[in-house]
Amino acid sequence: MGLDNDKMSAHFAEWNKGDLASYLIQITADILKKKDDPELSDGYVVDKILDKTGMKGTGRWTVQEAAEQSVPAPTIAAALDARFLSGRKDERIAASLLLKGPSEVPSVAHEQIMEDLQAALYAAKICSYAQGLCLIKAASDTNSWNVDLGECCRIWRGGCIIRSVQLDTMKAAFVKDPTLKNLMIDPDFAAALNQRQAAWRRIVTLCIASGIPCPAFCASLNYFDSYRTKNSPANLTQAQRDFFGAHTFERTDMEGSHHVEWTEDHKKIDGIEERTAGNL
Amino acid sequence: MGLDNDKMSAHFAEWNKGDLASYLIQITADILKKKDDPELSDGYVVDKILDKTGMKGTGRWTVQEAAEQSVPAPTIAAALDARFLSGRKDERIAASLLLKGPSEVPSVAHEQIMEDLQAALYAAKICSYAQGLCLIKAASDTNSWNVDLGECCRIWRGGCIIRSVQLDTMKAAFVKDPTLKNLMIDPDFAAALNQRQAAWRRIVTLCIASGIPCPAFCASLNYFDSYRTKNSPANLTQAQRDFFGAHTFERTDMEGSHHVEWTEDHKKIDGIEERTAGNL
Repeated sequence: MGLDNDKMSAHFAEWNKGDLASYLIQITADILKKKDDPELSDGYVVDKILDKTGMKGTGRWTVQEAAEQSVPAPTIAAALDARFLSGRKDERIAASLLLKGPSEVPSVAHEQIMEDLQAALYAAKICSYAQGLCLIKAASDTNSWNVDLGECCRIWRGGCIIRSVQLDTMKAAFVKDPTLKNLMIDPDFAAALNQRQAAWRRIVTLCIASGIPCPAFCASLNYFDSYRTKNSPANLTQAQRDFFGAHTFERTDMEGSHHVEWTEDHKKIDGIEERTAGNL
Repeated sequence: MGLDNDKMSAHFAEWNKGDLASYLIQITADILKKKDDPELSDGYVVDKILDKTGMKGTGRWTVQEAAEQSVPAPTIAAALDARFLSGRKDERIAASLLLKGPSEVPSVAHEQIMEDLQAALYAAKICSYAQGLCLIKAASDTNSWNVDLGECCRIWRGGCIIRSVQLDTMKAAFVKDPTLKNLMIDPDFAAALNQRQAAWRRIVTLCIASGIPCPAFCASLNYFDSYRTKNSPANLTQAQRDFFGAHTFERTDMEGSHHVEWTEDHKKIDGIEERTAGNL
């Protein structure tokens, strides 16, 4: 968008006064405007930092545990993958010469983009918190920890790096309904997401059409769209599993485990009764 | 798109004659047109299958190991998450009543969509293979297995469920360059992806704008766009890590590990020399 560092910083500072207010938004405003040591350069520090992100292993651990607990956590995984990809700087430099993006990018009014970005970031963040909270709930159930998710949100509110004003609303959601299955379906958050989904889609389509990677925004939006899909195409996957591995399937119109002889060749497969549909 | 099962089956059968030819495309053509047992219903089997996907654990294991090896595998993770989400059928039914999609969906010519879909599926599949092959390479390096990736592709060609005509070209890519870092930058695959990227973007933006989840298409496209990004925003993440945890950073213009006193408060932090930038 051609914004200089001071303008970007001002936008983050502005966002930090509204419903995006959080520690990470606040420090981003501070970071963007920080000038480099005059003895080193006359620019901004952030522009001199190498784009390779270090990590201490908590992201890795979270993604592995989400898979262990059968909890989808695509936004958190996208953040981890971004770190892995950042480390492959030499490969990215080589690929940048070979792989092409769009030759033309759509033109959109600056004001519209800034407003949409704010809405998209809010919605994508809620999805990220929803995934993390689902994971904690699943681990708590597995290990009988009896974690109080509302209390979790209250504790994060004071001092940790994911602290944000949104945590007050999150805490309220779990106080109101301690059995809440997913933060996104709390009535307040559902309304907040519904109100922002059009802007969110505009930002993601703009990035995709412009060739700008937006893995976390995309992961959150697909999480939202998948979660609100009553009838998913997983019936086709299940049919494929029964076709190639006779893994059987459930039906929508009757009980039990079913198998089909999809082709003549399937008549030769036996031992179906010993197979199972696999565990989720 | 309002296609009935026979028409969808015919499209898959047609795709199976071109560069998408593969076992999974072929059986999908067979599955879609398979009629139900006349004693059970007068429809198609696939439409009676419950959309809950079972699993044997190989997807989970792959995603966990990719994280362990610091290899981005977002398309494979998206497939695993789709399974996890498929299992939460009751939650999806409840959410479908609360979370909203677009009120209007874009109208696009049928022929254009079918052509674009074929290109998008090809490109997305190449990214998925690229991720899997990177993971095998990383595990091979870690464990000194000395895996020959070209040979791997040759073996998959005969008998396994991911067999496809694309594997011949993949094998050729690794025979030509056994040190190939990523399948996407093999000259033939780079050209194939570049040729299809516009169509791929049209499909993803159409899905996003229509509220249709497309997590794997999105994950592949973001993988492609992230990988071809020479200068990523990971410098900002690294600045944030130095701001909140004094984790230090590398600079683009000089050697060594650096730290900035971002604000007055940072002057009180000591022991910087004992901190590291974390490991990738």
